[in-house]
Formats: sequence, C-alpha cells, structure tokens
Amino acid sequence: MFDYNGSFQSAIAALKRERRYRMFADLERKAGQFPHALWNSPSGKRNVVVWCSNDYLGMGQHPKVIEAMCAAARTMGAGAGGTRNISGTNRALVKLEDELADLHGKEAALVFTSGYVSNHTGIATIAKLLPNCLILSDALNHNSMIEGVRAAGCARQIWRHNDLEHLEELLSRAAPDRPKLIVFESVYSMDGDIAPLEAICDLAERYNAMTYLDEVHAVGMYGPRGAGIAEQEGVMARIDVIEGTLAKAFGTLGGYIAASDAVVDAVRSHAPGFIFTTALPPAVAAAATASIAHLKTSGAERAGQRTAVAATKAALRKAGLPVLATETHIVPVMVGDPDLCKRASDILLDRHGIYIQPINYPTVARGTERLRITPTPAHDIRLIQQLTDAMISVWQELDLPLGTDNEPVQHRTQTIAAGG
Amino acid sequence: MFDYNGSFQSAIAALKRERRYRMFADLERKAGQFPHALWNSPSGKRNVVVWCSNDYLGMGQHPKVIEAMCAAARTMGAGAGGTRNISGTNRALVKLEDELADLHGKEAALVFTSGYVSNHTGIATIAKLLPNCLILSDALNHNSMIEGVRAAGCARQIWRHNDLEHLEELLSRAAPDRPKLIVFESVYSMDGDIAPLEAICDLAERYNAMTYLDEVHAVGMYGPRGAGIAEQEGVMARIDVIEGTLAKAFGTLGGYIAASDAVVDAVRSHAPGFIFTTALPPAVAAAATASIAHLKTSGAERAGQRTAVAATKAALRKAGLPVLATETHIVPVMVGDPDLCKRASDILLDRHGIYIQPINYPTVARGTERLRITPTPAHDIRLIQQLTDAMISVWQELDLPLGTDNEPVQHRTQTIAAGG
Repeated sequence: MFDYNGSFQSAIAALKRERRYRMFADLERKAGQFPHALWNSPSGKRNVVVWCSNDYLGMGQHPKVIEAMCAAARTMGAGAGGTRNISGTNRALVKLEDELADLHGKEAALVFTSGYVSNHTGIATIAKLLPNCLILSDALNHNSMIEGVRAAGCARQIWRHNDLEHLEELLSRAAPDRPKLIVFESVYSMDGDIAPLEAICDLAERYNAMTYLDEVHAVGMYGPRGAGIAEQEGVMARIDVIEGTLAKAFGTLGGYIAASDAVVDAVRSHAPGFIFTTALPPAVAAAATASIAHLKTSGAERAGQRTAVAATKAALRKAGLPVLATETHIVPVMVGDPDLCKRASDILLDRHGIYIQPINYPTVARGTERLRITPTPAHDIRLIQQLTDAMISVWQELDLPLGTDNEPVQHRTQTIAAGG
Repeated sequence: MFDYNGSFQSAIAALKRERRYRMFADLERKAGQFPHALWNSPSGKRNVVVWCSNDYLGMGQHPKVIEAMCAAARTMGAGAGGTRNISGTNRALVKLEDELADLHGKEAALVFTSGYVSNHTGIATIAKLLPNCLILSDALNHNSMIEGVRAAGCARQIWRHNDLEHLEELLSRAAPDRPKLIVFESVYSMDGDIAPLEAICDLAERYNAMTYLDEVHAVGMYGPRGAGIAEQEGVMARIDVIEGTLAKAFGTLGGYIAASDAVVDAVRSHAPGFIFTTALPPAVAAAATASIAHLKTSGAERAGQRTAVAATKAALRKAGLPVLATETHIVPVMVGDPDLCKRASDILLDRHGIYIQPINYPTVARGTERLRITPTPAHDIRLIQQLTDAMISVWQELDLPLGTDNEPVQHRTQTIAAGG
C-alpha cells in the first residue's frame, strides 16, 4: 500500500534538512503607519518595521487608493461575479485597462488576476499563436516567465543573463523568417540590475524578433509617468508587449499586458488563464486605477524612494556591510549561507523589531543567500540608522565579514527563479 | 520577414469566421440592487437584469461582506505588499485559512489568488510529490484541472464522465502500490450534474487512491454549513483534498485547497503558482471570511436560491423551453447552434434587458450551445415571469423548437472546458 501522507511528510522533512523550509511571518500592516506593522509572533503581537515589502512606494496605504477601493465596493459590491465573458467584465476593470494602455502608450491592455498569471498564460498564448516560434529567454527570468515559456511547448533557447552577444548569436542562428519571441525583464528583482533595453530593441529589429518585457519591478517607479524603465529610456514604443503588475508599486493586486490591439485581442480570445477565471473585483480595479493615475502625475513618491534608497545604500556601505551594487531601489546584502541568512533574519526580527525575510534557494542560487532590502519613501533617516545599527550588531554576533572600505560588492550572483 | 501582426489578426479572423469571437458586456453592478445592473451598451447606459452570474447567492453585495472589505482596507491598506513568504502573509489571510479549514473539517487550508491557480498549481504539485503518480481525471473536468494535470507531467488517464465502471476499470489495471490521484468535480458547471461522491470514495479506498475534489460550483450552496456536496452527502472526511473558490457563492476573489497538514504544507512549500505570486489583499481575505462565516450559520440564502431555481425550471419547462434536467442551481436551456445562441442572447439583452451570455465552443462542445441561467435568491417570481415571457418571444422569433409537454431535456451533453 502506498503511503500518501508519508510522501508529503518526507518532502517537508527534506526541506527542513536542507534549511529550505519556510516560515511565513503573520503581519498586520497598519494603513497610515507603514512601514510600521504588527507581527503576530508566537509570543503575541509585536511592533516591527517592514524592510522587505514590494509595496515599493507605500501606495497600498495611500488614502486615494483605499478610498477608491471602498467606494467601488460600496457601489458595485465585493466581487466581479463571473469570468470576463460570463458577466464578470465590470466598468472599473474596463477603465483600468484604458488607464494601462494610456500609461504604456499602447493601443490596448488586458488585466489578469496576477502578474504570475499574465506571464504564464500571456507568454504561452503569444508563442502558440506564432507558427514554429522560437522563444529566446533570459537566464534569470522570473519563475512565472519560465513556466510560461514551458507551457508554450515550442522551441526555446536561454541567453546568458543580459548578455547581448549571446542573444545576437542565438538570433543570427535562427532562420530569418522564423518567428522569434525575446522574453526578458527590465529590473531583475533579486540582484536589482537593469537589462540593456535599447540594445535589445536594436537586435530585435535587426533580426525581426518580437519583444516581451516584464516591468513588474519597475512600473510606478521609473519614467516620468511611472511607466517603467522602457519609458525612462525612451524605448517604450519599440517594445511589442509590456507586462506589469498592480501588486507592487501600485499597491493592490493583479497583472497585465499592454500591446497592440491585435496582440491583446488574440490573448484575450485564446489564453486559458484569462478565459477560465473570475475577473478582478471592481474594488481592486478601482484601487489600482487610482494608484496608477496618481503616480502618472505625482513624482513625490519616486523622489522619496530615490532618497531613501541612496541613504540606505550609503549607510550600509559605510558600515562595511556587503551591499550588492545596484542601479535600482533593490538593496541586496549578501550572506552566502542559508542557515546564517535565516539566523540573521531571525535575530533582526526577534531582537531589533526589523523584518527582512531571508532569501534562500530556490529564489536565489545556493551560495548567494541574502537579505533583500527595499527602502520606500516612508523609510526615513531615523529608521535607516536603526537598520544599520541592527545589521552591524547581527553581523558581529554571527561573525559575518564586515568590510573596512565602503566598496559595494560587484560579483554577479546567479538568481534562479526570483520573487518568492 | 515574418508578419507578427498579421498572425494575430488572422487568429482573430478565424474566430470570427467560426462564430467564436467573444464580446464582453461592460457591466456596472449596483450593490443592493442585484440582479439589476447597468450595461454600458454601445448606445449608452441601460438597465438590465443579470441572469448568468456566478455570484450565486448575491453575497458580493451583502452588507457584511462589503463592510468587511472596507474595514480591512481602511485599517490594513489596499494590498498585501508581497508574496506569502516575503512580507505578504497578512492577518486577514491567516484567519481566512483557519475559517476554510474549519468549514471543510480539515487540518489546514491554503489560499491562492484564484480557483484557476489552486487547481493548476495544486494538482501539478501534489502529483509531482508522488513518485510515478498516475492521475485519473474525469473527462469533463474544468480547464484549470486539465492544465494542472498537464503541468504535473506524469501519466494520466481520462475516465468517462461520472462513469464509475470506467473509473474502476482504470484503477484496477494500475499496480496496487502505485500512487493514484483521482481528480474530479462535485457539480459540473455547464450541465449542472453531480458526481457520485460516495461511490468514488468507495473506489478510492478499495484501490488505495488519493482523491482531489473541485467543489467550486458547490461551496456556500450545499450542505448544512455550505461546505459543498461532500458535506451534504456526509463524505467530506473521506475526500483527501477539497478545492474551492471564494469568487462564486462567496462573492469575492481567490481559490483554496483544504486538506491534511502534510498536504497543505507540502503544496505551500513546493507550488510555484503559490510561492511566486503576491498574496491576496487583506481586504479581499476579510470579505471572503465574512461571507463564509455568514453562510456557515445562515440557511436563508440557500433556501432562497432553491426556491428561485425550482420556480425558474418549472416556468421555463411549462413554456416548453428545452431546459436540461439538472439536480442543481444551474439551468441550461439548449440551443445547439452557435449563431442562434448568440442571436438569442443579443435579442434578450437588446430588446428585453435580460443578460444571459451565450455559451459556445470551446466552453461547451459544438452542437450543445446553450443559454446557462443561474437563478439567485434575488430573482423573484416577477423576474422569473419576465424571463420566461422574453425567452418564449425569442424562441418564436428565431423559430427555435418549443415543446408542448413540460419534460426536461435528458440528453447528455459533452462539455469540454467549462467556465469561461
């Protein structure tokens, strides 16, 4: 007789042996007080400062966003009531798609229940509609993109992360009239580095390839209207499909693609992960629309984030902590060992009231375990100093190396399936 | 040069030629007035009555649910701010999982961003954790289950819909010590029929198979506490994994599984569609919890739905309309032609202010096109009469067959990938 329960238990035991078993911190964020939150610890409620949120600009607590959510819930109810086709298309969602198309300067946009689903069903559907498509996927793409590429079931080649020569080599080897889909991100979430978008567009045009760009860690934060790195670098119109999320800098839930009418209509009509699922509630759509509209015109949140990020990087480097060099708002501090990473995180939380989740394999490669810090406009100088002091203390306690100079760490890390 | 835009345009043109191109109705539901809604028609806003919502009990407009959503948004903000592991686990979500485990009498529950994702990543992950697993999948399972079975990448066999002999034949052919996962639904959403749960449990126990039951079209509506058909038939404890949705009878958004601690912990730790995606916002989780808690003790909504469903079936049958016989709240009226089905739906909407989306291929098999009616507690006798009169008029106008007796239609339809 097969022992089902034993199978699941031994899978869990294996994770524990490998120090990969994850414990979720049970948090109560307090609207208006972010990054302060309550942590429901085993010994009761405790105040903590959250330093690892993807609510990058704190928009989840913006009064306009909360009010839009409540107003829509009060007038239209708590749910959509159906799939997009069967009674679930609601006014708030149609307006959100208009807002997103405008944000990215595209003809149309399509909203999914998550960024994960956008990539998974979006990439698979686009590739399946192109006969004999070859997908060229960056080696460090997010798990949702990897799963989308797999689900496409077509030929795929992985180009070395951000390596233009390798990408060109693969493009030039493919038949000129074969459809080719280049799949990549702008900001890679674990190393915080940026793809060379303009050069990738040049290659795509030279070799007649289609481009699919994931901007989930950039939308809201980069570009004059918060449309992302492609907007900031002036190449938005040259990207065929821009994928983004409503759940990070926009502070709500959901994902989307923005593209030409033909692409959006084709995905709308063929993507199983879009067709066979309940639409986003009007309250969530209205909250997202309010957030996007606000960030289109307000630069204050982006400026506040830049200030906090620069100050955090400077303070940690000055203290000799191993900060990975990034051009973005993501501040990885390298540990390089899963057990020490977990212990550093535990001590920060237990002893200092600072919450930074350890990032271990499989989210990053073994040996590149880290604390990933994401300063927001709400992290002020006092909090940054508190963080720095706490980290120095933890580094000393765990006997982790503290540098004497303030040079950032330059080594390339091998992130595997970022984001979880 | 490959013509990308042309490829997408011709995919759309093919759908139009086959009468499979879908237009979404842009609706504004009005909380407190459901099933009345505003339709943003090409010629402006119009009042309509929604007869095809999956907000089966109207809980999306329940004051307790709306208030819970707004209260959570005001206190905890509009979003979760991260994946479950990285700062996204919020108090409201933990409480929701406790509520769901209690609802189904299981040790634990796990919430996903949608029922689609629950099935997709849940089935795939469970099967992958069982060495050399054989999946036995009902022929009419929903697209999300089909995709989950595919993503599992293991051996699979399809048993004829609700056919116990065929299931037993397949079970008996497999090696006794080989892990086997039976994947099925309780209420099939397009035909409205119910699986023989007790007999399936008997077979699963006899052949030592694990059971995975999708109750998305049953939770909230069947059983003394609204836990579904398995509760109603007293077999809930014999099912290993119960999957459900928060987006239909519970009126909000999200999906879940309820199972043993070991299964839930293993899925939590291994499922990519769970790990690498932002958690559900506290406001959505709180709204869902309020809805579930209400329906655990209130039977009024279930009684109201039964009354409306019985009255609708009786009125339509009496009028000679081809109502498919169902034991459930789903009332399919058969048309059997995609063009006529679309035209019937268009006339109902344009001329009678009645919104019932046509259900065509690929949601149902060709030749079984239908109008799928879902009466809720808010559809009163006056609305039922209005519906009946309108449908008779449409049937006459389109020269569709009207029976003289009131016998329900008995033929088995072949639903393919229900729900979209």
